[in-house]
Amino acid sequence: MSTLGFIEYEQANAEVRAVYDDIKATRKIDKVTNFWKALAHDPVRLKRTWEDTKGIMAAGALDPLVKELLYVAVSVSNQCDYCIAAHTASARKKGMTEAMFNEMLAIVGLANSNNRLVAGLQVEIDEQFKAIG
Amino acid sequence: MSTLGFIEYEQANAEVRAVYDDIKATRKIDKVTNFWKALAHDPVRLKRTWEDTKGIMAAGALDPLVKELLYVAVSVSNQCDYCIAAHTASARKKGMTEAMFNEMLAIVGLANSNNRLVAGLQVEIDEQFKAIG
Amino acid sequence: MSTLGFIEYEQANAEVRAVYDDIKATRKIDKVTNFWKALAHDPVRLKRTWEDTKGIMAAGALDPLVKELLYVAVSVSNQCDYCIAAHTASARKKGMTEAMFNEMLAIVGLANSNNRLVAGLQVEIDEQFKAIG
Amino acid sequence: MSTLGFIEYEQANAEVRAVYDDIKATRKIDKVTNFWKALAHDPVRLKRTWEDTKGIMAAGALDPLVKELLYVAVSVSNQCDYCIAAHTASARKKGMTEAMFNEMLAIVGLANSNNRLVAGLQVEIDEQFKAIG
Amino acid sequence: MSTLGFIEYEQANAEVRAVYDDIKATRKIDKVTNFWKALAHDPVRLKRTWEDTKGIMAAGALDPLVKELLYVAVSVSNQCDYCIAAHTASARKKGMTEAMFNEMLAIVGLANSNNRLVAGLQVEIDEQFKAIG
Amino acid sequence: MSTLGFIEYEQANAEVRAVYDDIKATRKIDKVTNFWKALAHDPVRLKRTWEDTKGIMAAGALDPLVKELLYVAVSVSNQCDYCIAAHTASARKKGMTEAMFNEMLAIVGLANSNNRLVAGLQVEIDEQFKAIG
Repeated sequence: MSTLGFIEYEQANAEVRAVYDDIKATRKIDKVTNFWKALAHDPVRLKRTWEDTKGIMAAGALDPLVKELLYVAVSVSNQCDYCIAAHTASARKKGMTEAMFNEMLAIVGLANSNNRLVAGLQVEIDEQFKAIG
Repeated sequence: MSTLGFIEYEQANAEVRAVYDDIKATRKIDKVTNFWKALAHDPVRLKRTWEDTKGIMAAGALDPLVKELLYVAVSVSNQCDYCIAAHTASARKKGMTEAMFNEMLAIVGLANSNNRLVAGLQVEIDEQFKAIG
Repeated sequence: MSTLGFIEYEQANAEVRAVYDDIKATRKIDKVTNFWKALAHDPVRLKRTWEDTKGIMAAGALDPLVKELLYVAVSVSNQCDYCIAAHTASARKKGMTEAMFNEMLAIVGLANSNNRLVAGLQVEIDEQFKAIG
Repeated sequence: MSTLGFIEYEQANAEVRAVYDDIKATRKIDKVTNFWKALAHDPVRLKRTWEDTKGIMAAGALDPLVKELLYVAVSVSNQCDYCIAAHTASARKKGMTEAMFNEMLAIVGLANSNNRLVAGLQVEIDEQFKAIG
Repeated sequence: MSTLGFIEYEQANAEVRAVYDDIKATRKIDKVTNFWKALAHDPVRLKRTWEDTKGIMAAGALDPLVKELLYVAVSVSNQCDYCIAAHTASARKKGMTEAMFNEMLAIVGLANSNNRLVAGLQVEIDEQFKAIG
Repeated sequence: MSTLGFIEYEQANAEVRAVYDDIKATRKIDKVTNFWKALAHDPVRLKRTWEDTKGIMAAGALDPLVKELLYVAVSVSNQCDYCIAAHTASARKKGMTEAMFNEMLAIVGLANSNNRLVAGLQVEIDEQFKAIG
């Protein structure tokens, strides 16, 4: 049961439809996914979030598959079920193999463990890492 | 002030020295970093953690730079200062440019924001994402 | 399937019933919600948690609606589905409009993103912020 | 030691200076704070983040002080020291009293505790909360 | 719907079966639980994770019940539903009473609250705690 | 620099002094630690938090050392530096050895890793765990 419900294309105003159309064209899909339909109750936020997602996830110094893997890794670390389901699907479309998924997941587990070992041991930052900035 | 203090090479027993030697050889560095010296109070854990880190971060279906970026992304999301400093340095050694860092960081910000929008809106998983497993 | 199951009014001892009665009177509801029925396995904790919740969420320097919004914001940030559902309902009863919900949610997203940008960039605290305490 | 260092006004390109100028004008301050100077290594992200922050934190259905309290609450919950220092200062400028701060903080503590009690008890969502969306 | 699906004993290769057999023998159970069947898509990770779990959770300076309580406490704090369900069951098998569960849960709530009060108040570490390491 | 500064015994009102006196008597210490002095700006919250801490951490079905280890484990998982420093010291006073600390820390690392493996793999709860409540 989503908090505000979904705004379907038919109910949407022109501003929301324009975003939906761009999502469908960019992603080559027929229907926008639930996230966008839930977010559409706030058209300004919908537009900004879509523009950011589109811009940040596009090819740049990092390629789109690597970006998708980074997005999934953060979502796994944060334990967001919806985000894991949706972005694992996106990553597969962009070429993520099961071996890649497994390696990404192993890193998320490792970093989450090591982050806490560091905290428990209260490890001070090495001098050579302080000089970088 | 680390919780247990550091175990320097000179004080270390043979088991710990063997790990230190492997870290130095693998990473081509003269001295092990503080994390390992703090963890050495538990030689079994030190050995397992190093073996896991070495195995998981090695080239596989994903290349070492991508793996390092994933590690940094999770550490940034978890706000672990030591881990960010240490693994940003590792990523740079493996070829991370400032542009790559910036793109990785933008994804961490975006995913952390979107993960919470999903939670607040209590978005249900789309049917097409449920059929995957 | 809750971990310990629920304690219904009929099964409850006098200590638990007194808390249930106060919850119902304070909130003007007929039945206590599942959280309290699950917590009632520990009557001391039930009483303390209810007293704290009642005291902290009551009108003070901040009005009850603002307090409820703060509670929802933290629960969204922590991705606690039950808490989001229950306290969004409470906030609505206290006058939260959809526009207020959307603005609150946008802040939760923004702060979660900016918190990580700060971590990734390892931003030092400005001098003027250090002098406050 | 920030990861990339700061970009001071003198070194900044026109795009970055335009953002800095808008921050200073909007907030009526002489110098931009460290967060923006660290973020300026990515001018596109700087501009978007500033625009979002400015837009989201402006008066709307919620007033700017309530918004600032929500921002601080999330940052406290996420334990982001920089964000707590910077936004506590902003909240004070907008009228936050010590009593308001204390009440906000009590809610952050309460919600963080209750969120975990709910998780440990695996409390199912009440029927009446499911019907809302 | 798990991300990769489960690997049942019948489908498993010799490497995975060896781990399954050890899990069943160690825990005196007939079938391995879903976690291991999902993880078996990565046989190396399955083996390492099982060896770590077996080694870390075995009797040592702390007894197995205390260890199980620590595991549950962290899982509750992280709000991992599967982990709470599975390890609460394990803890019960090792002798956890309802009173023990309630006391553990109260500590998780308290620490989560106090951790945030500390963050909000930006409490500096007392001199006597700095001298320990 | 703490957010509100500290309230020393000399400046404290009778209500705060009564709490300080009880902390000192209960813990057999000469001076209250910084956490309480920072929290004293809100005397009602100070009193409740101290009473809860005292009650929850006292001997019950679990002994005080186990309780302290649970508190440290959650604080390590949440990466609260102050709480780790203060409660590691308390745990040592109650008999925590370095071996116990190391075993507790290994569990925190393991659970943090496994919690994320579960999330990434979207593991469904086993039927036998659903029947418990």
